[in-house]
Amino acid sequence: KMDCCCDRELYKNDLIKLNLIDAPVIYERIVCVCVCVCVCVCADLLPASCGEEMTRGFLQELVDILLGFICKSNQRSSKVLDFHHPHQLKEGLEGFSLDLPDQPETLEQLLVDCRDTLKYGVSTGHPRFFNQLSSGLDVIGVAGEWLTSTANTNMFTYEVSPVFLLIEEVLLKKMRSIVGWADDEGDGLFCPGGTISNLYSILLARYHFYPEVKTRGMGALPRLAMFTSEHSHYSVKKSAAVLGIGTENVVVVKCDERGKIIPAALETSIATAKEKGLVPFYVNATAGTTVYGAFDPLNAIADICHSHTLWMHVDAAWGGGLLMSDRHRMKLQGIERACSVTWNPHKMMGVPLQCSAILVKKRGLLQECNKLGAQYLFQTDKPYDVSYDTGDKSIQCGRHVDVFKLWLMWKAKGSDGFGSQVNKCLENAEYLYDQLQKRTEFELVFKNKPEHSNVCFWYIPPSLRSLPPGSDRDRRLHQVAPRIKGRMMEKGSVLIGYQPLGTKVNFFRCVFSNPATQQEDIDFLLDEMCKLGADL
Amino acid sequence: KMDCCCDRELYKNDLIKLNLIDAPVIYERIVCVCVCVCVCVCADLLPASCGEEMTRGFLQELVDILLGFICKSNQRSSKVLDFHHPHQLKEGLEGFSLDLPDQPETLEQLLVDCRDTLKYGVSTGHPRFFNQLSSGLDVIGVAGEWLTSTANTNMFTYEVSPVFLLIEEVLLKKMRSIVGWADDEGDGLFCPGGTISNLYSILLARYHFYPEVKTRGMGALPRLAMFTSEHSHYSVKKSAAVLGIGTENVVVVKCDERGKIIPAALETSIATAKEKGLVPFYVNATAGTTVYGAFDPLNAIADICHSHTLWMHVDAAWGGGLLMSDRHRMKLQGIERACSVTWNPHKMMGVPLQCSAILVKKRGLLQECNKLGAQYLFQTDKPYDVSYDTGDKSIQCGRHVDVFKLWLMWKAKGSDGFGSQVNKCLENAEYLYDQLQKRTEFELVFKNKPEHSNVCFWYIPPSLRSLPPGSDRDRRLHQVAPRIKGRMMEKGSVLIGYQPLGTKVNFFRCVFSNPATQQEDIDFLLDEMCKLGADL
Repeated sequence: KMDCCCDRELYKNDLIKLNLIDAPVIYERIVCVCVCVCVCVCADLLPASCGEEMTRGFLQELVDILLGFICKSNQRSSKVLDFHHPHQLKEGLEGFSLDLPDQPETLEQLLVDCRDTLKYGVSTGHPRFFNQLSSGLDVIGVAGEWLTSTANTNMFTYEVSPVFLLIEEVLLKKMRSIVGWADDEGDGLFCPGGTISNLYSILLARYHFYPEVKTRGMGALPRLAMFTSEHSHYSVKKSAAVLGIGTENVVVVKCDERGKIIPAALETSIATAKEKGLVPFYVNATAGTTVYGAFDPLNAIADICHSHTLWMHVDAAWGGGLLMSDRHRMKLQGIERACSVTWNPHKMMGVPLQCSAILVKKRGLLQECNKLGAQYLFQTDKPYDVSYDTGDKSIQCGRHVDVFKLWLMWKAKGSDGFGSQVNKCLENAEYLYDQLQKRTEFELVFKNKPEHSNVCFWYIPPSLRSLPPGSDRDRRLHQVAPRIKGRMMEKGSVLIGYQPLGTKVNFFRCVFSNPATQQEDIDFLLDEMCKLGADL
Repeated sequence: KMDCCCDRELYKNDLIKLNLIDAPVIYERIVCVCVCVCVCVCADLLPASCGEEMTRGFLQELVDILLGFICKSNQRSSKVLDFHHPHQLKEGLEGFSLDLPDQPETLEQLLVDCRDTLKYGVSTGHPRFFNQLSSGLDVIGVAGEWLTSTANTNMFTYEVSPVFLLIEEVLLKKMRSIVGWADDEGDGLFCPGGTISNLYSILLARYHFYPEVKTRGMGALPRLAMFTSEHSHYSVKKSAAVLGIGTENVVVVKCDERGKIIPAALETSIATAKEKGLVPFYVNATAGTTVYGAFDPLNAIADICHSHTLWMHVDAAWGGGLLMSDRHRMKLQGIERACSVTWNPHKMMGVPLQCSAILVKKRGLLQECNKLGAQYLFQTDKPYDVSYDTGDKSIQCGRHVDVFKLWLMWKAKGSDGFGSQVNKCLENAEYLYDQLQKRTEFELVFKNKPEHSNVCFWYIPPSLRSLPPGSDRDRRLHQVAPRIKGRMMEKGSVLIGYQPLGTKVNFFRCVFSNPATQQEDIDFLLDEMCKLGADL
């Protein structure tokens, strides 16, 4: 037994573990310089008595790793990803083991694991990551998340989340006013993602028209029908499956070439459903479709919903951010007529994942629809105004704090800052659109100027450029995007998504939501595609 | 225009903003010492060119605040909460404003806001916070969350979350093996909380028996019935409402005095439902009820489910942690016979919020039940094994990364470490139970030794001690817990929950899931109650 410089008592066992027991000569030096780091385990951290220093040291080292990652994510010369196949990572690359041990590992080893986790991951904040609607790495947002996880609490009651619940109230109120609802109208919640927000909207619509569904179930209701466009997000159908409505009762309405729902087709679909004996109750309009970034004509849809007494939901998960921009918010004209709105600040506003809101015009409906009044949590004899206990409004019991990062970013940028950020992303999209029109190696999927930051296009490799349109060219073109994407992933220089859509074979979809992206990154993307696809 | 020490150019406007333009004498000093901090805004952080140093500085200051909070949370002398009513916080205490500005605030101000947010919040990691099933502040878990939010990615596809998806796979496999399922059995997902996990179980059970529900909805099905105990979590009923089954088709089965479901009552309930023409399909058994911490007799329930061909779900959100302890895991005997299990590591295992898993025995069911095959996300022509794209298994599209913190904690503690932690929490419960039996100021809600870490009891104030049992005493006793709790919140010394249950008037429920809690904290709790309640 001997003492080490950090006041830890060392036992023979520790030294054996470190293979030091047979090296008496280097004992002293190692004990003083290394062992106090090497054999530290999590039991030495807080709440251990005297664990404060060790806690500070450990978290400081972690923060250095994280700061390194943040800085690297912002360097154009660094890779967007360092791709490995699942089997490679599972085999334990350079000692990176995913296995769960029975015995503790050292704090040192944990830091190595943290470094490796980031190394083999993807830099979604890299200015050349165009793969997802959510991208970028907002430092203030990250700071907000660090605080949130340190506060480690839950959104169900005011007694455990006073500040976060008030922050949610302030944010929801602001977002509703930006949507255009009156001050005394509306309610809302932050949800774990846009799909759950959309699910809430259908749940609420169903309850609004048929409150008996809560107790008696769908069996007591007529056969309902809901409507959404062929370009809308799949969460509408998925929610219909979950809610027991059934996917075949989701009528998919035709869009125009640009991806916008055709109001006349919606009218026809509603009439047809009624003829079949179905009872229409809900229309989902999309403000910013996933692939094309199209905005449905909200006022025309609102007129139809009004005349048929249908619930109008606007899925503005992706397009909602444009409401922050004076230049672009007119693309969502009519959103104020919706009964509910999904808006994900984690997309166009660059807030870290997740941050999604469901806004509801009819106050009290969320509570009525979802409350069960569990008395162990929602006592009515508490010593404060229990209307702030929002837990019974939600489907979830415990609800993660997703609001603080958005609030902190709002403080940091102001509404105006969010507006500029959105404008910049849309300018990038216009720049890409202009470049694609100029360059002969590319072809746009549709000719119109982008409304959102989505730009859809094909790269046409030299071997296909002279082929006439037709199934042979289509078949070959279909394989181009996956192959270029595969090469991109191997190289790690840039990341962009592709997909087929309807009769259109695989094409690239570029989206901009990271304000770090500059025109040089767009030029790089196009040049890189030409390089990687030259021999296809 | 002049230069400042941090290489920022300062303009007249900056100085006017700071009210410095009319104080030329102090110009130089202030410019060098203060202004470079005061006028920094988030636009100076990364991705701004040269933003690296500012980013490091800002995050470093934030980390100092967070470390201060972590250390303070572990000091017994610090308050558990600094209570203010909603209207007080909204009025802006000491300049703490919740309002969302149009223009940016300074980084300095943001740090003040962060400090205030923590100050007016609740220290859920304080050793004297007994209010919720989730408590404690595991430093490794917090570190895991900091990394997760910095990585800022999404669980839907391997291409954006290679490491986290593999970590999820490893964790789910381990958890299934701990439940007792064979190596080639099972599937699972991490979900946003135990309610959603329970909802998944019902969704899967319904699909398992009636796959047509996905397309045709509940209208195509007979009237289903599900069974759960009167002590079970309200999420079972809530899910029935959401899924379109209806709460009145959830049959609530009687429990014994200890809160365990009575198997014979379950048999009778099933028979009665069948007589009424309902079709039973699902039984929820609870391993660790919310209030009493009771474990339903899983083997007896499994026998009943087997004989009636019902889906057996075990809601082990709270009790699952006991599987980590050799001493206590026998309380969940029979769990291996379940079709699905909810297990929340964010409760008994002390993982930061949120971390909840739904485990499913039948492989492939999650995918079949939930898949919609959106091609923009789940292309089948990707350059890697797309079975790792788990996004189509889930209801959600984007899914938050909840796995890394658990994985890192597992590395840090080992399975054995989790076991010791659970043992310690249950020892605390036994200690409290012993103290309550010894002390005349308290009365246990039920006499048996706690099976989990829940201990339920009344504090009997002096004025009630001589009263005979009966409605007068009950009425007065019912008001004791809320009043003591109110005083506790005002004082901020300790926090514990209370509720009525069935015919039992308001009683305290103490739960232990924070390994930081020591016997001295339990003594403190009881003494504090006596102090605060002496005059009631």
